[in-house]
Amino acid sequence: MIEDKNPQRTSLEHLGEFGLIEHLTKNFDVKHSSTVTSIGDDAAVLDHKSKQILVTTDLLVEHVHFDLSYMPLKHLGYKAVIVNLSDVYAMNANATQITVSIAVSNRFPLEALEDLYAGIETAAKVYNVDVVGGDTTSSNKGLIISVTAIGEADESDVVLRSGAQVNDLVIVTGDIGAAYMGLQVLEREKEVFKVNPQSQPDLSMYTYIIERQLKPEARKDIVELLKALDVKPTAMIDISDGLSSEIMHICKQSDVGVELYETKIPLDPQVISTCEEFDIDSTTIALNGGEDYELLMTISQDDYSKIKGNPNLTVIGYITEKDRGNLLITRGEQAIPIIAKGWNAMKNEA
Amino acid sequence: MIEDKNPQRTSLEHLGEFGLIEHLTKNFDVKHSSTVTSIGDDAAVLDHKSKQILVTTDLLVEHVHFDLSYMPLKHLGYKAVIVNLSDVYAMNANATQITVSIAVSNRFPLEALEDLYAGIETAAKVYNVDVVGGDTTSSNKGLIISVTAIGEADESDVVLRSGAQVNDLVIVTGDIGAAYMGLQVLEREKEVFKVNPQSQPDLSMYTYIIERQLKPEARKDIVELLKALDVKPTAMIDISDGLSSEIMHICKQSDVGVELYETKIPLDPQVISTCEEFDIDSTTIALNGGEDYELLMTISQDDYSKIKGNPNLTVIGYITEKDRGNLLITRGEQAIPIIAKGWNAMKNEA
Repeated sequence: MIEDKNPQRTSLEHLGEFGLIEHLTKNFDVKHSSTVTSIGDDAAVLDHKSKQILVTTDLLVEHVHFDLSYMPLKHLGYKAVIVNLSDVYAMNANATQITVSIAVSNRFPLEALEDLYAGIETAAKVYNVDVVGGDTTSSNKGLIISVTAIGEADESDVVLRSGAQVNDLVIVTGDIGAAYMGLQVLEREKEVFKVNPQSQPDLSMYTYIIERQLKPEARKDIVELLKALDVKPTAMIDISDGLSSEIMHICKQSDVGVELYETKIPLDPQVISTCEEFDIDSTTIALNGGEDYELLMTISQDDYSKIKGNPNLTVIGYITEKDRGNLLITRGEQAIPIIAKGWNAMKNEA
Repeated sequence: MIEDKNPQRTSLEHLGEFGLIEHLTKNFDVKHSSTVTSIGDDAAVLDHKSKQILVTTDLLVEHVHFDLSYMPLKHLGYKAVIVNLSDVYAMNANATQITVSIAVSNRFPLEALEDLYAGIETAAKVYNVDVVGGDTTSSNKGLIISVTAIGEADESDVVLRSGAQVNDLVIVTGDIGAAYMGLQVLEREKEVFKVNPQSQPDLSMYTYIIERQLKPEARKDIVELLKALDVKPTAMIDISDGLSSEIMHICKQSDVGVELYETKIPLDPQVISTCEEFDIDSTTIALNGGEDYELLMTISQDDYSKIKGNPNLTVIGYITEKDRGNLLITRGEQAIPIIAKGWNAMKNEA
């Protein structure tokens, strides 16, 4: 499905490990004063002064987390960074550095890795983070990407999952379910392509949901917005595995219950129309879809006036006593228990 | 070759990702005050106060970096941590936290991952580091481990690769070449085992070199020793890819040359006898073997009296002007250029 616009193929063997790292990282400049020394020593040296440090890491495996038949390598590099930065923003912190390790089989030419790193570089630029280290090695099969992100925050700004209080409002940013439906469209087109490689699918009616799947963004802007609004959430998490799974993390770690309202969950019209086309319930997708990289937070009711009417922030429910359980109030005003199906990578084996 | 002493096999599918992480990390306690919050949120929160932070990461891929037919999983977990801590010590810093991400195929039962994590836990205990995060996911084939290590040091203590000065002494810790020869013995026994699975090899004459391969240690003690001796190296690197490759990193980044003396390179008697048995030149192994995780450093001649006679520190040469090149002075007093063959993971494809 992805046209190879770069027919040149340089074998990785000619470069060797150090040559490869040097080649791929030569454009990475240092933007943060907290990056004292970057790539090129046994370890990077960072100095965050009086700030606290946030550390998070993710491992992406070909055929489990991504499919190169419809995921361009540049987008993959971008997304690999985004999913990690999202975890830093979910702590109400600013992402400052990343390390990127990759293992590749020799079926990838140098040009493919250049595309991957171009995506990494773009994400680092857009989100203003320094690439300070990594590891480049071979795999016997497929592509593996491991990113570690480092962020900083004043101690008083850090938001954990465990701080939600009874009566707090539950807020979700943006809209959800789109990345999952984008994946359904891409998977369907892949099957069509297998049968007829000449097919030229018209995907114009799915542009938003496909972009949400292939080139998600992390909500750095929300961390800045919350600061501008003078709102510190009581708990926050990013939506990588699905709304139901994430709200249950907050409830479990905060020792509280929740009521969410089906009618309040923000869905893009393209999600609704594509769900209808695929004959899937859109609420199920919103609850269990995953990969949205939106933020789910709880805030004190005292802060409601500060966020009221902001198009980025939608109130979808409120926190209850733990013994009330985790409930979804449906359109028909039925209360049904929220079950975290989530996106379970352990069962998702190719 | 490795007897399966634990015949119980619990499928990973029954646990799911979150259950698996909880299960595997339940024994990990927090030892450092710099670990504010650990596993269980979007990111770990660290606070290193006025110290600088060191960050390093490594990716280990089955069939490229390790072979489970002779590497017990517990040892593998231990080694995966060690190789990263070694990079922190090579900065003259103290390792404080690690994150561990793994991708596994469903051919591994839960009990195998418990062994792997037992090794990780042991290393974390022995080296006094906190496991503060990670990611557990599936792979379509094999086992992949990604470890990121974080350390701290006072700004004035950090040692880079780039500080070597003309006339500085070149020092190596411990002895080198053993891990590589241990690997040769293990590879040979694997071939024997393939032909005759009933064979019970007598490996007693190779215990040291096999242990150096299967259960290497990182030289945390050297960082402490240098502090006690009041010696700050001018440059330092850990020997993961082989002495020749590492000294060339120091020379390139410090813009200097070097003379090493073949007769000074510290070799264990088992390395010498095994090299004779395999009909390999022991100096070649010492220069290019890799995986020793010893430290290679340069110190000012002014500090020589402080380190003289210390059994952990062997002077093997000195730093010269760059235009003198990188030379090995052989037993026969010939000067031959040092070439970094190193251990090139990009060519080492299974």
